Amino acid sequence: MGFLKLGEVVLLFDQRSKKYLVRVDPAKEFHTDFGKIRLSELLKKDYGEEIQSHLGRTFKIIKPRISDLISKIERPGTIVLSKDVGQIVAGTGVGPGDFILDAGTGSGALAIYLGYLVQPNGKVITYEIKSEFIEIAKRNIELVGLNHIITVKNKDVTQGFEENEVDLITLDLSSPEKVIEHAKSALKAGGYVVIYSPFIEQVQKVNEALHRYSLQEIKTIECLTREIEVTKRGTRPKTRMVGHTGYLTFARKI
Amino acid sequence: MGFLKLGEVVLLFDQRSKKYLVRVDPAKEFHTDFGKIRLSELLKKDYGEEIQSHLGRTFKIIKPRISDLISKIERPGTIVLSKDVGQIVAGTGVGPGDFILDAGTGSGALAIYLGYLVQPNGKVITYEIKSEFIEIAKRNIELVGLNHIITVKNKDVTQGFEENEVDLITLDLSSPEKVIEHAKSALKAGGYVVIYSPFIEQVQKVNEALHRYSLQEIKTIECLTREIEVTKRGTRPKTRMVGHTGYLTFARKI
Amino acid sequence: MGFLKLGEVVLLFDQRSKKYLVRVDPAKEFHTDFGKIRLSELLKKDYGEEIQSHLGRTFKIIKPRISDLISKIERPGTIVLSKDVGQIVAGTGVGPGDFILDAGTGSGALAIYLGYLVQPNGKVITYEIKSEFIEIAKRNIELVGLNHIITVKNKDVTQGFEENEVDLITLDLSSPEKVIEHAKSALKAGGYVVIYSPFIEQVQKVNEALHRYSLQEIKTIECLTREIEVTKRGTRPKTRMVGHTGYLTFARKI
Amino acid sequence: MGFLKLGEVVLLFDQRSKKYLVRVDPAKEFHTDFGKIRLSELLKKDYGEEIQSHLGRTFKIIKPRISDLISKIERPGTIVLSKDVGQIVAGTGVGPGDFILDAGTGSGALAIYLGYLVQPNGKVITYEIKSEFIEIAKRNIELVGLNHIITVKNKDVTQGFEENEVDLITLDLSSPEKVIEHAKSALKAGGYVVIYSPFIEQVQKVNEALHRYSLQEIKTIECLTREIEVTKRGTRPKTRMVGHTGYLTFARKI
Repeated sequence: MGFLKLGEVVLLFDQRSKKYLVRVDPAKEFHTDFGKIRLSELLKKDYGEEIQSHLGRTFKIIKPRISDLISKIERPGTIVLSKDVGQIVAGTGVGPGDFILDAGTGSGALAIYLGYLVQPNGKVITYEIKSEFIEIAKRNIELVGLNHIITVKNKDVTQGFEENEVDLITLDLSSPEKVIEHAKSALKAGGYVVIYSPFIEQVQKVNEALHRYSLQEIKTIECLTREIEVTKRGTRPKTRMVGHTGYLTFARKI
Repeated sequence: MGFLKLGEVVLLFDQRSKKYLVRVDPAKEFHTDFGKIRLSELLKKDYGEEIQSHLGRTFKIIKPRISDLISKIERPGTIVLSKDVGQIVAGTGVGPGDFILDAGTGSGALAIYLGYLVQPNGKVITYEIKSEFIEIAKRNIELVGLNHIITVKNKDVTQGFEENEVDLITLDLSSPEKVIEHAKSALKAGGYVVIYSPFIEQVQKVNEALHRYSLQEIKTIECLTREIEVTKRGTRPKTRMVGHTGYLTFARKI
Repeated sequence: MGFLKLGEVVLLFDQRSKKYLVRVDPAKEFHTDFGKIRLSELLKKDYGEEIQSHLGRTFKIIKPRISDLISKIERPGTIVLSKDVGQIVAGTGVGPGDFILDAGTGSGALAIYLGYLVQPNGKVITYEIKSEFIEIAKRNIELVGLNHIITVKNKDVTQGFEENEVDLITLDLSSPEKVIEHAKSALKAGGYVVIYSPFIEQVQKVNEALHRYSLQEIKTIECLTREIEVTKRGTRPKTRMVGHTGYLTFARKI
Repeated sequence: MGFLKLGEVVLLFDQRSKKYLVRVDPAKEFHTDFGKIRLSELLKKDYGEEIQSHLGRTFKIIKPRISDLISKIERPGTIVLSKDVGQIVAGTGVGPGDFILDAGTGSGALAIYLGYLVQPNGKVITYEIKSEFIEIAKRNIELVGLNHIITVKNKDVTQGFEENEVDLITLDLSSPEKVIEHAKSALKAGGYVVIYSPFIEQVQKVNEALHRYSLQEIKTIECLTREIEVTKRGTRPKTRMVGHTGYLTFARKI
């Protein structure tokens, strides 16, 4: 057992299971509707312990998991949801040591989870053309402590990648079909490219490109998750669900 | 560049994109409907190169990814599919260093992918009561080279776990509700338990137990994936799909 | 060609395709955000013609279809949606001359569409125990002009039905399992009972009762519809969808 | 109570709930794996009674519902499934007196159910270009006794319809976009056109045409039904399901 350290990122759970991500900082207070918390007090606490607000409310101190961090990062637009990230990761067998390219970065959410998984010897290079997204992504990568694993490049990938012998390339772009030839050059034999596309027209074009450049094991899926409500009144699927995020197209260089 | 080593596990792709998992072994031949391959010849080859069968057919030599290995392991019954593994992994933020308990082992497929992800410092302990499954799981773990990460225990988890300060517990058992109290004791603060259940009655009972033992962030989902066919004739979802595998229930110790 | 008659129920479409259901009434004005319409003027119009509001906005006069009427009826709670009504109707082959029992009535929406379909020689008897629903249902039945086909009875069907030789019985009740024995007595050979249940516990109980009373061709389904957006930006399923309404259980007396 | 008549079409249920559609005919025997049935004996029976095979097996005599007849008709290819027919019927409010155009006919299944519903004063005109389908459709229409309601025309609808003031037009054709202008001319104000298309490219083209010709309330849906298994082992959705039949596009002339 020890104490939390200066700058450490910590999750606080209140008694309604509401979560807050805070950084240990002796100079700051954190405001919630359950009262103010002096963040300097965290220096005398450890994970699993509790801290009180000035209103006497109790908050549990939890070491955040990567999924907690991603759920709390700054996001300018939509991010690839956990349900789709899971399909990418398990469908391509992402793991330690993988060398991954990602474009476009957006808020960096996908790059961050991939970067987390390839530790300690893997690398993620994420390409983005909009500088405002790059700033946000860099802040998010710093927050989760993955600067040594993830590099953000401000470059248009329709002009090609600078890397090769890559295990996985993930594309979340408006015209992914323009990147397939470059993706094939960058991949190692057995490597995957995965394209995330909200629109079916993108799926049609990217499939055409994947066939043209002789990628193998081409497969497009959509993933739907439905929540089941289990209450005293009874069990049933939730009335509302997410009907669509994006299609996922997988292909492999052989 | 170098040469493949004795005992190395290698993926061969024929020209129809059919995959074969073989082990480099100078004493053996591998039979396919495209002809016989002398496995001793692999000692003079490297990944990305090709090998010929005695019928002159070409096979590409690929370093298998963990997903290739899992798709080829010995399986006595059904395994948790990639679509559901992806939900577990991304939904709980599995990654390097995690300490994971898994029950029951079955063929070991889930334990293997979790073990792969927690490298190099994490651990997976997988519990199984049927000794015939234990033998199969051990062979599969040896095949993928994860003996140093994954331990198989022949023990009934309704009697409790021997570990604590655990990050994640995965349960694929007929009566998971009998294990929830033990799971709570074994988990660290912030850790997850995930239950895979084919039947809704199991979901009902396990939700009741999760509430009884005050687990938090309780959520049951089902995950459906649908393949989209993109052909010259047109684009449409495949006519047949998997309508159900199992429900996934997530909960967290706070 | 002729003129609309006093008391006739008419659909008005404004230029945004917004629909209004009005009754021809010389004494009344109808207020919309596109201006007031004098309903007396409808007496000089026919279907397919147009009418102006005092703001000069044009409204198209359309003869309402039964689906228009049902979408505009008074509803105290939720109604069985068109997607589920379609499954009931096509799955059991509802049509002219059928003799149908329905319980509980609610707003009468299901009884109304069934009553419409069994014209001119069929009958629908709908049972309801709550008198406030009976008043609403009667107003709705009067609105669509089906008083001669549909009878509302204020009676608890767990005590039995008063009819027999029935083609179809529809149940939308909290404890449908208590009515299965009575449903079987009332049905003719070849007739169907269809149970609509929001909760899976109701499905479990009603299936048990259907087996106990030897009903045949027992089948439970859920029906999901997903809207596809086709816009200039591209084609994709809508982001949000209805994830659940109710399960439909079909069974037949042989 | 009376007796079955010569030529009457009757449903026989054996004790496994297997169904047979037979026609009362004194000259014929009907062969099943439960033995032969002399169809002349049906002249001494009524609905709800039983008949024995020469092996002493009992068959229940049931008056077929329209859904029984459609499930037993001759079909050269696939037919629009009951789940989709239900969406068309309930979504457009089909009922007695409607005047409906249908193209192409195929086996006539959709025209038959529509024809059944518009009785006694409605009409269905169904267009088909392939003469082999016309023969099959005519036999099917004769079998269900709807010759007075349904007319089959051997004509290419991309050349236009011969009717107007139509309530509903259903299109199940490879290039429905070529028929939208004609459909609009034929429809009455408030009438619907519904297009059934297996491929998304057809949906894209037909939506474009519907907008070009100013149809209103344009909406494309897909309908999925999933069967729930309720057995002693537990309750769960079936492992296999139909993942796709066709998209349904609705539009209305205002």
